[in-house]
Amino acid sequence: MSEENKPNVIVIGAGGVGVVTAYSLSFNGGSKVSMVIRSDYRHVIKNGYTINSCDYGKIEGWKPDFIYSSTAEAAKESSVFFDYVVVTTKNIPDGPKNSTVSEIIRPLVEANDKMNSDKKTSVILVQNGIDLEKELIEKFDASRLNLISGIQFIGSTKIGKGVIDQIGKDRLFVGSFDPSASDSKQAAQKYIELYSNKDYNIVEYEPRSRYARWKKLLYNAAINTTTALVGLDVPRALQFSINGQTSTEKMIFEPAMREIIAIAATEGIVIEEEFIDFFLNISKNILFKPSMCVDAEKGQLMELEVILGNPIRIANKNNVSTPTLSMLYGLLTLVQSKLKEQKGLLKFDEKTLSLKESS
Amino acid sequence: MSEENKPNVIVIGAGGVGVVTAYSLSFNGGSKVSMVIRSDYRHVIKNGYTINSCDYGKIEGWKPDFIYSSTAEAAKESSVFFDYVVVTTKNIPDGPKNSTVSEIIRPLVEANDKMNSDKKTSVILVQNGIDLEKELIEKFDASRLNLISGIQFIGSTKIGKGVIDQIGKDRLFVGSFDPSASDSKQAAQKYIELYSNKDYNIVEYEPRSRYARWKKLLYNAAINTTTALVGLDVPRALQFSINGQTSTEKMIFEPAMREIIAIAATEGIVIEEEFIDFFLNISKNILFKPSMCVDAEKGQLMELEVILGNPIRIANKNNVSTPTLSMLYGLLTLVQSKLKEQKGLLKFDEKTLSLKESS
Repeated sequence: MSEENKPNVIVIGAGGVGVVTAYSLSFNGGSKVSMVIRSDYRHVIKNGYTINSCDYGKIEGWKPDFIYSSTAEAAKESSVFFDYVVVTTKNIPDGPKNSTVSEIIRPLVEANDKMNSDKKTSVILVQNGIDLEKELIEKFDASRLNLISGIQFIGSTKIGKGVIDQIGKDRLFVGSFDPSASDSKQAAQKYIELYSNKDYNIVEYEPRSRYARWKKLLYNAAINTTTALVGLDVPRALQFSINGQTSTEKMIFEPAMREIIAIAATEGIVIEEEFIDFFLNISKNILFKPSMCVDAEKGQLMELEVILGNPIRIANKNNVSTPTLSMLYGLLTLVQSKLKEQKGLLKFDEKTLSLKESS
Repeated sequence: MSEENKPNVIVIGAGGVGVVTAYSLSFNGGSKVSMVIRSDYRHVIKNGYTINSCDYGKIEGWKPDFIYSSTAEAAKESSVFFDYVVVTTKNIPDGPKNSTVSEIIRPLVEANDKMNSDKKTSVILVQNGIDLEKELIEKFDASRLNLISGIQFIGSTKIGKGVIDQIGKDRLFVGSFDPSASDSKQAAQKYIELYSNKDYNIVEYEPRSRYARWKKLLYNAAINTTTALVGLDVPRALQFSINGQTSTEKMIFEPAMREIIAIAATEGIVIEEEFIDFFLNISKNILFKPSMCVDAEKGQLMELEVILGNPIRIANKNNVSTPTLSMLYGLLTLVQSKLKEQKGLLKFDEKTLSLKESS
């Protein structure tokens, strides 16, 4: 395929996941790869990325084909149709208004539409949680979008300016959010071709993408959340209860996972009970601090709504009792609000002891 | 009463509560007041205390009659019988072995017994929680002790070396742990005489001391615990949920308090439902960060076992379901273990991902 005919892919979010995503696409060579890089923009323009990857080895000075500092800039400067808009940022619908996924991708979607009103934009959300697509269906003309779900298992972290450390193999599952949308399914399969690097990464088509998201929620809703509340990596969260008279596994992780299974069941999605043990077992054997815990410790907002808020809202609608998840949600809402106050997104008046309208 | 005939009182613990306790006794003048002062010992020997008290005004350079650096030193040096041993330290049975209440008071109890085998030692525990007396009954010959319960409502904090800030009026309720122990009841009433300062503090005899402890647990088991988990003062913990879609009051505080009422009921103690609203209302109107929250933030161990562990053990024994309290307990056990690891009281091996025997 000639350079000109290659599809354009733009990766939004330049953390551990985003950089490996862009690098994998670039390594494959089937697409022209753009990145939106916010905080490390100048550094990467000058020096490129240093990537220590368990999949690709040690890479120095790597740059994607194009670098933009924002999606607005990309839309304005690029003058290309972005076939794939890949979102690897955190999904925080309760965060600042201008950092919701719809607001982030809006300039690209609108520029694409202006440029070619016959071609759909494929949006791939490589993010945690459930019901992520609903925001986009609400905010855009969904008939103009292929909404694609990316479920990634990877251990990759930005450890410094332009420096990425990937310690866990990249396994990506891609499928259409709507299992009956044939354009989205086709676009998902095409993306897999662009992303796959045989012997390097594992990329699979996932026809049951909602099932896969619920399955991953077993881990995220039960384990990720708990570690964020107590500020511990997973093996410590498991072992520290044994020292006392409680059991994190029996009292929190298992009940929370059973509640996720019960909610999913009311949506017609059967998550096999075996996955409870599966997630508990992998948790015991790796010294790992999940994302919400890392975010809370860094003073960053957590993906609380897509990981816990959305499943609990489904549970309420479908009359599923979720005592464990609701308690975690109630407590984590307080932590999230504390983080918001620290970031100035929420103001509390210590004189009247009440919330002020945030500016 | 001549100086020589005045009873000897020794106050253990020189925080916000202990210093106001010793000062109140001293102000009354009915006893000879000794204090065990650990970290500020040298400072106080030289400069005395500065106390800014809403009850007593501004006091500079105040010292009790005698100052010791430990109970062992007091037992060795004093050569007096301590009629009252007043413990105002935190009660942390799961903390270091040498800082349990029984180990702290042991030198005084033993020296008293050696000095006068006819006279009982009155031990007053001015501490939070339930079942505090059990440790002492187990570790000592209880027929030699008057076990007295002190339930204090006060806002008093050590804000610097030898500097105490008392912003909340001192209200102390004193009674025998065992309501049928006549010696203890008499000793409690005598202590009230020594402690009362008309127009300054409020001291009352509490014939139902166990009832009063369960009642205070409504606040401590539900509200103190929650704030420790999320790191917020009480009004923020209440208001921050309103901003979201949860309600700290309905989802956590109220259910937790109802569980305390249910446990107490199985012990024959009826806590009136009105106290739920009472504690919620006082919580809304004062910018206050409860003790467990302060301790966790300072990296100090929390009074978790006497506030949550003991009531939950009673619930388990009496088949009372406590989903909210058990969840808080499970989560706070992890936080407590984290604090223990930080203090070197617990060791976790990151290679084997398991606990090491603590040294």
